[in-house]
Amino acid sequence: MLVLGVDPGLTRCGVGVVEGSPGRARLLAAGVIRTDAGLDTSRRLLAIETGLEEWISQYDLDVVAVERVFAQHNLMTVVGTAQAAAVAMLVAARHNLPVHQHTPSEVKAAITGSGRADKAQVGTMVCRILHLDEAPKPADAADAVALAICHSWRGAAAERLEEAAHLANAQRPGLAQRLHTRKVLA
Amino acid sequence: MLVLGVDPGLTRCGVGVVEGSPGRARLLAAGVIRTDAGLDTSRRLLAIETGLEEWISQYDLDVVAVERVFAQHNLMTVVGTAQAAAVAMLVAARHNLPVHQHTPSEVKAAITGSGRADKAQVGTMVCRILHLDEAPKPADAADAVALAICHSWRGAAAERLEEAAHLANAQRPGLAQRLHTRKVLA
Repeated sequence: MLVLGVDPGLTRCGVGVVEGSPGRARLLAAGVIRTDAGLDTSRRLLAIETGLEEWISQYDLDVVAVERVFAQHNLMTVVGTAQAAAVAMLVAARHNLPVHQHTPSEVKAAITGSGRADKAQVGTMVCRILHLDEAPKPADAADAVALAICHSWRGAAAERLEEAAHLANAQRPGLAQRLHTRKVLA
Repeated sequence: MLVLGVDPGLTRCGVGVVEGSPGRARLLAAGVIRTDAGLDTSRRLLAIETGLEEWISQYDLDVVAVERVFAQHNLMTVVGTAQAAAVAMLVAARHNLPVHQHTPSEVKAAITGSGRADKAQVGTMVCRILHLDEAPKPADAADAVALAICHSWRGAAAERLEEAAHLANAQRPGLAQRLHTRKVLA
């Protein structure tokens, strides 16, 4: 599964392309799309769109994973972050790519086993998983890569479960119900 | 000045086209772009983009005015609202249209004279200004129209002040400074 991870931000929007399947992942590219803080927000969003279009056109992606933005995040930056995320989702939808959102704790849990792991732990595990000497830089690129790994691991599992539930639903409604419950609780 | 006002929202995105100059305004059209709450957010943003593209292509607009989203707004909806606003700003920038953001209190103050006016007062004044028997419906369309009126009145004044400051700057730096200060305080 080829995943584009996007760590949204108006000033630095992290991007990472990972080919992954549960338990393994390979880094294809990582970087950031930067926009000038002196520009009007509408022009910054346009610059992010242009950058993302370039990234999306370069790879035969299966899915785009975007960090989920919560209003409880940093109140000073939540609006800008949500707006950069909107551009990523919009560009993906325009390319007919499915979009999945993951919270930072889901990413940490997928990578390190703990939703409360610190940045250093996540960085160490990302290096180990991808066989890198050091984590991609800057931090926004590393976060996007971690998100892409998380999706290729979690997403694939969730999709298999959905498929199984769908199949079972056609055969045995009771099992489908149980599978669905497991997914909700997972 | 032909202004498209946008009251951003994921479920109902209000739009209104107003031709205005300080003290007078004429309504050309108002409506809402609706998206299905059952759709994935990325598809909803795409539907808003498609709708806004249609509106923007129909008129020879001078400017797009979008309600400014604050993180202090309703925490449950702020992310979706910010994302719908991002799509409006992005589409405007793509059409090379300037984008201005106004807060709800700026809109109320421009329309009624008080930043703390209630919805009914704003509605009454919008009808009076546009010579309508009743306010545009639904409320999101009326809000977008009020925003467009606000911009055509406030925006024009601000632009004249900027031009004056620019001219004065070339002639008398002291006056430019004072004009700039007035603008900041306005």
